[in-house]
Amino acid sequence: MSSATNAFVELHEDRLLEELKQFLRIPSISAQPDHAADVKRAAEFVASSLRAAGVEHVQIIPTSGHPLVYGDWLHARGKPTVLCYGHYDVQPPDPLDEWVSPPFEPTVRNGNLYARGAADDKGQVYSQIKAVESLRAVSGELPVNLKFLIEGEEETGGESISKYVAENPAKLQADVALVSDTELYAEGIPTLCIGLRGLIYTEIEARGASRDLHSGMYGGVAPNPIFGLVELLSKMKDAKGHILIPGMYDDVRPPSPAEKHSWSILPFDEKEFLKNEVGSSRLTGEPGYSVFERTWARPTLEVHGIAGGYTAPGAKTVIPAKATAKVSMRMAPDQDPEKILAAYQQFVKENTPAGIEMQVRVLSASPAISVNPDHPAIRVAAKAFSDILERETVFIRSGGSIPIVGDFATHLKVPTILMGFGLPDDGLHSPNEKYKIANYYAGIMTIAHFFEQYGQ
Amino acid sequence: MSSATNAFVELHEDRLLEELKQFLRIPSISAQPDHAADVKRAAEFVASSLRAAGVEHVQIIPTSGHPLVYGDWLHARGKPTVLCYGHYDVQPPDPLDEWVSPPFEPTVRNGNLYARGAADDKGQVYSQIKAVESLRAVSGELPVNLKFLIEGEEETGGESISKYVAENPAKLQADVALVSDTELYAEGIPTLCIGLRGLIYTEIEARGASRDLHSGMYGGVAPNPIFGLVELLSKMKDAKGHILIPGMYDDVRPPSPAEKHSWSILPFDEKEFLKNEVGSSRLTGEPGYSVFERTWARPTLEVHGIAGGYTAPGAKTVIPAKATAKVSMRMAPDQDPEKILAAYQQFVKENTPAGIEMQVRVLSASPAISVNPDHPAIRVAAKAFSDILERETVFIRSGGSIPIVGDFATHLKVPTILMGFGLPDDGLHSPNEKYKIANYYAGIMTIAHFFEQYGQ
Repeated sequence: MSSATNAFVELHEDRLLEELKQFLRIPSISAQPDHAADVKRAAEFVASSLRAAGVEHVQIIPTSGHPLVYGDWLHARGKPTVLCYGHYDVQPPDPLDEWVSPPFEPTVRNGNLYARGAADDKGQVYSQIKAVESLRAVSGELPVNLKFLIEGEEETGGESISKYVAENPAKLQADVALVSDTELYAEGIPTLCIGLRGLIYTEIEARGASRDLHSGMYGGVAPNPIFGLVELLSKMKDAKGHILIPGMYDDVRPPSPAEKHSWSILPFDEKEFLKNEVGSSRLTGEPGYSVFERTWARPTLEVHGIAGGYTAPGAKTVIPAKATAKVSMRMAPDQDPEKILAAYQQFVKENTPAGIEMQVRVLSASPAISVNPDHPAIRVAAKAFSDILERETVFIRSGGSIPIVGDFATHLKVPTILMGFGLPDDGLHSPNEKYKIANYYAGIMTIAHFFEQYGQ
Repeated sequence: MSSATNAFVELHEDRLLEELKQFLRIPSISAQPDHAADVKRAAEFVASSLRAAGVEHVQIIPTSGHPLVYGDWLHARGKPTVLCYGHYDVQPPDPLDEWVSPPFEPTVRNGNLYARGAADDKGQVYSQIKAVESLRAVSGELPVNLKFLIEGEEETGGESISKYVAENPAKLQADVALVSDTELYAEGIPTLCIGLRGLIYTEIEARGASRDLHSGMYGGVAPNPIFGLVELLSKMKDAKGHILIPGMYDDVRPPSPAEKHSWSILPFDEKEFLKNEVGSSRLTGEPGYSVFERTWARPTLEVHGIAGGYTAPGAKTVIPAKATAKVSMRMAPDQDPEKILAAYQQFVKENTPAGIEMQVRVLSASPAISVNPDHPAIRVAAKAFSDILERETVFIRSGGSIPIVGDFATHLKVPTILMGFGLPDDGLHSPNEKYKIANYYAGIMTIAHFFEQYGQ
């Protein structure tokens, strides 16, 4: 049957591309209020595409932000259920003058489709819908039960879907979730992401004097909250990147030897990575751990922003009354965010310099996610991916967080297959975002093939 | 003769006050371009007041900013020459709605004259001019030679006067400078400031990666310039306020035992100071040094501003490409700014974390100023002050810098008498700035008395 869906895709290549272009022409920029109508139009486009593919009970669900699109097809009796996720909103296209062709006029060059949202995530979510269409076209039915939940706020925080998942676990119940919003490790390498680091994100506010003071008059006796933050933060991590907060490494589950081995044979050139991706004079981080271990599997502590006092051009001799820093910690599997957060808050308390008051605000806290590569759905997905791209599937992790995966794990108790078809150089969030057209078709085929094999 | 000038002031109290009010009605806000004509009008007011007092060769000197006003009277053969300085520009009056009476409508309440610029510095510079007028009125001539150099850019950096002093040392040559722009230590206490700390003001820019990076993808390997600054700055000073840059205390000249003793008997309540002036939970700084020593006579290192990464509300997981900090050092007498700066730059170089590049920009560097209290002019000034306020003159220092004093020392090689008549609660730069009317008259009398005694 896989050859039948492949043949369907090959036969309808032009139409499939044209329809994706229609989707991409809608400037569904979720961050910009004057594009709210476009975001709604994109939701309607998704809903009609789902209906056209044969998905039932398609609903546009209003939220306090942008709408969710739900649909299902539940007639594969005795077969597992897959919850499909993607998003139809896009990043703002700025800076506009760096685009070779206009961001909302999809244009083909060198086998790529250039448009805002091409890879992130319209091209990918559309592959899911077109996989359903191709399966229905060749057999009239589907090999598994499917639920779709597609959001329009991914680029602005995804609050509505998070709330919806928490409030509707029965409606969304499934055996596995399929998220198509990631990328291949490299061109032509079928890739499943099976681990995401957890994230605690905080804001620390330091206060000293009750008002801004003149550093000539008060320098030497007045506490300086900028320096207070400097003292505190400098104690949190040493120069080698080792976090000094007690207990920070207690529960870290290291990657298995097999996983470490699989990382060691991934094509990777550290010099190229340093030069082309990071661009600093050298890489940093814990000695004795590889780049993959440091970015995928080790806890980190970063300061994302710091602000205080006078920062405009020139000199002002002020001792400011307050200063703030945004500080996050990434966590490895098995680390408990509550426990880490408690240790962090205790550390701040114990290391607050004299004369300074520190207040910690927690903006988010979510644990690491790891999916067992031996889970049946993952094994099937890996096989399907491998069949289509004709190369062995690699299992990687990501150092970032994808909040919806945590929501699915927490509220639905289902693992997520992160099966995406983007490429590292697709330019997500940048000018000239592209999606390789061959990967668009391969995505449709792979998803269809996964549904078929998972239904057997 | 002093009783004659006193009598003159007493006789003409009303007129002297009315004329100061006229001066204060001119909104000579140097920072606001739409007040440039008012600033010019204030310069013209100063020039005509000088002429009316009998000062000769009065000139309004154009600059690239606001004009200087020069004038002299050089007929006291064989007598010393005093260079008088003040400024006729004022701070912006915002926030306007906190003023009880309008800032440019001088209003008398409780023996105070309320107006923007009343104490800083129109009331004070006008005392100098009126002292000349009173001396000329009673004797037809002056007991010393006088030069006036009055600027209109003090509140915006004073660049033009600094350039003018550097370029015209012969024209401005004098035996001593008299700056009337400071305050009494407390109500009724004649006060001369005989020391100012030096100041080196720098900006450090830290750079890591060539672009902003996602902390999920790159956290653990990419250098973070915010943390780089944190590491560097934390090494510059310990928790007790002791600067750790080598050589930072090598040349510090401590106050003499006599000076320390004079400070120890100044009326001062540390608890009140903490509560009412600083408002933090406690004072900080080097143990074993008094508040006066820490703010007037010890080197300090402060971070005045810090900026980098994401600082708007909410969370963004960025490792920024750069971060900056404004860092200054205050210096004690005998410390050489060049030497301190070299040690500072060397320290930055040696303590720059791996993967980070630091660039230091020096915004200003000026040495501490100290005036020998046994200098004849200072002794005469102290005696004159003491005669008028009928209390012993105290010698204090200030932890801040007054750049014009450094310019006079550097380019004219003259010491400066900092003889001011403001009060600590005059509210300079704040709404409801005031000048005690009795201090306005006492200022005229004291300056006249000083000229008389210095001419003998």
